[in-house]
Amino acid sequence: MPQDSAPPLPRDTAPPTAAGPAPGSAFDWLDTARSERQRAGLVRALRPRPADCPLLDLAGNDYLGLSRHPEVTHAAAEAAQLWGAGATGSRLVSGSTELHARLEAELAAFCGFEAALVLSSGYAANLAVATALTAPGTLVVSDAGNHASLIDGCRLSRARTEVAPHADPEAVRGALAGHSGRALVVTDSVFSVDGDAAPLPALAAACRAHGAALLVDDAHGLGVLGDGGRGALAAAGLAGDADVVATVTLSKSLGSQGGAVLGPARVIEHLVNTARTFIFDTGLAPAAAGGALAALRLIGREPERAARAGEVARELHHRLTEAGLTAVRPDAAVVSVRAPSPEAAVRWAADCRTAGLAVGCFRPPSVPDGISRLRLTARADLTGDQLDRAVGTIVATAPPMS
Amino acid sequence: MPQDSAPPLPRDTAPPTAAGPAPGSAFDWLDTARSERQRAGLVRALRPRPADCPLLDLAGNDYLGLSRHPEVTHAAAEAAQLWGAGATGSRLVSGSTELHARLEAELAAFCGFEAALVLSSGYAANLAVATALTAPGTLVVSDAGNHASLIDGCRLSRARTEVAPHADPEAVRGALAGHSGRALVVTDSVFSVDGDAAPLPALAAACRAHGAALLVDDAHGLGVLGDGGRGALAAAGLAGDADVVATVTLSKSLGSQGGAVLGPARVIEHLVNTARTFIFDTGLAPAAAGGALAALRLIGREPERAARAGEVARELHHRLTEAGLTAVRPDAAVVSVRAPSPEAAVRWAADCRTAGLAVGCFRPPSVPDGISRLRLTARADLTGDQLDRAVGTIVATAPPMS
Repeated sequence: MPQDSAPPLPRDTAPPTAAGPAPGSAFDWLDTARSERQRAGLVRALRPRPADCPLLDLAGNDYLGLSRHPEVTHAAAEAAQLWGAGATGSRLVSGSTELHARLEAELAAFCGFEAALVLSSGYAANLAVATALTAPGTLVVSDAGNHASLIDGCRLSRARTEVAPHADPEAVRGALAGHSGRALVVTDSVFSVDGDAAPLPALAAACRAHGAALLVDDAHGLGVLGDGGRGALAAAGLAGDADVVATVTLSKSLGSQGGAVLGPARVIEHLVNTARTFIFDTGLAPAAAGGALAALRLIGREPERAARAGEVARELHHRLTEAGLTAVRPDAAVVSVRAPSPEAAVRWAADCRTAGLAVGCFRPPSVPDGISRLRLTARADLTGDQLDRAVGTIVATAPPMS
Repeated sequence: MPQDSAPPLPRDTAPPTAAGPAPGSAFDWLDTARSERQRAGLVRALRPRPADCPLLDLAGNDYLGLSRHPEVTHAAAEAAQLWGAGATGSRLVSGSTELHARLEAELAAFCGFEAALVLSSGYAANLAVATALTAPGTLVVSDAGNHASLIDGCRLSRARTEVAPHADPEAVRGALAGHSGRALVVTDSVFSVDGDAAPLPALAAACRAHGAALLVDDAHGLGVLGDGGRGALAAAGLAGDADVVATVTLSKSLGSQGGAVLGPARVIEHLVNTARTFIFDTGLAPAAAGGALAALRLIGREPERAARAGEVARELHHRLTEAGLTAVRPDAAVVSVRAPSPEAAVRWAADCRTAGLAVGCFRPPSVPDGISRLRLTARADLTGDQLDRAVGTIVATAPPMS
């Protein structure tokens, strides 16, 4: 019966709609889950932005401000026109273009690795490495603060995973010492919540002492750390090491989309042959590959961008702590500012937004320690005026800290 | 020591290179794995194609020939220019644009579902649904022929997975009957290896009888099956059903990149709040969203494209079987032709390529039953001449069938 000809319903009964759930549906439990989220104040909703969003953006991960750089958007547009809107298939079937190969060669060379492999996301890259470089019997030692994609990679692998306390190379050494056989140590280079850096040299030494391999997710290091933005591995003198594999994303400093694995050629060849999230996924769209390649060349030509992102982060941290807020000293371009509660963090972020400033708001369950924060990203292209405005807004809207 | 000043080495010793592996590296086991692949004749290598690739393509999944359609590539290019080369962050932080929202609304409406959610790949979409709609204690019943991303979704979930024989609704009914509590039945609509269709009405009836939910990966159905390409769920009268969730890809019939979940609004809302591969991944690049949206509108305007893909597939099957080859009767746009061995399949595909025809070559471990095949995709935009050429080449290069 069409809705508009239906008889009126008693006021306390919701009318069924054509597309809505029937009574007794297999998904009724979702309503309970929803109510629980609402009671806990943890409801998330999408807020689509317009193309000419007037907000000052300190929420995204566009660290070098390249996602809207005309050279980058032009290259993305040109790649779509020249190569097509999609890759049309798996990289192993029809989805590998010379554009992908060029990006891989230049990315490996820039970061100081022998070879690279581009996937459709950083998430897919981490799943690929964690599953293809382990087997039943492998020990994986994973930092407690690692990104969700590394955690899911460990879960998806058939290996035994031991979670090590955050940024604790001695604990990693202890875990490795108790194991004989293949082992893989897994860490973010810069942790996405607090922006603190992993102790890479000490982790690499622990790996070397025990014949273990090291996997570092450099999503927040590429373009910001190391000489001219060559990443955390280059900064630590570990790029190109025979036992080190890095994953990076093309969607942060490179302003585009996708992920990549960097490492010895034999690791890359193994991934091409065995990594399920590489083999059974459509290749990265040409526009994303083209945009990332243009951004990479731009960073190579303008190495000062990387240093500037770090400067802006330290400046932000300095001025916010001077104003009495609690913030973690930034090792890269992420500045994390503590909030007294999830509700206060949400309100704080909303007040910033009302004042024209977009900031990230991290709260449970996205934060492993249960502490809610504002998360600010220090874009290299922020002007002095914008920085003043950002600091002024954050301080003016800050909740009372107990 | 720089390589060019090194003393000459005895001829049987390979010189170490700066980036190459050191002796006794943690990755030495990869060399053994490589030798085993070589011995088994199962080495895969990337073959980057130029922009003006002269091959006739029956290998990719560009079923409607839209990845290079000027309307689609123009929309992708325009989106990159207008919205930026990347989404800049998670869809929950800075990565949701009005372009994503528009694509979601039009995709849901086209396929007949209440709501949609766009992710960076179909792989990510399947991981999202399989993990967020299950819990410890949930029973997942998964078809033995399902795509790797559904299998990985089951593995990543905390649910108990029972693998049901391929396309066997009675076995699914039996598995559900032995379980009390939440259950999810998981299947491809069109299986990617053989191109055969799942018995969706019987599976849905089994789910209804036992209060289970049904997840259907319609990657190979969208744009090909159903009225005007509305997909396998629409064709089966199951689109918009309260207990049915579909995943689709934007990278096959829609010629672009990305994936989407279609279902009741409460399912989509639950994914936004809980699905890790949605929350912790950068949003789909605007160019990919723009390209997919243009393709969707084009299919809506030109519904004959979907029917044509099916016709081409049936014509291919008819002519190849008439010539004495063994092929599975196609239910959608994939035609699978048997090869006598992995080596013969590789040689056959290589001979086709030499003759100017790109075909897919599926062999272990990508095929669950160990049977090697050529996999042909019946593009809606193939001309009669191209079809003649494809059939002629495949028949002329066919190995002796034992």
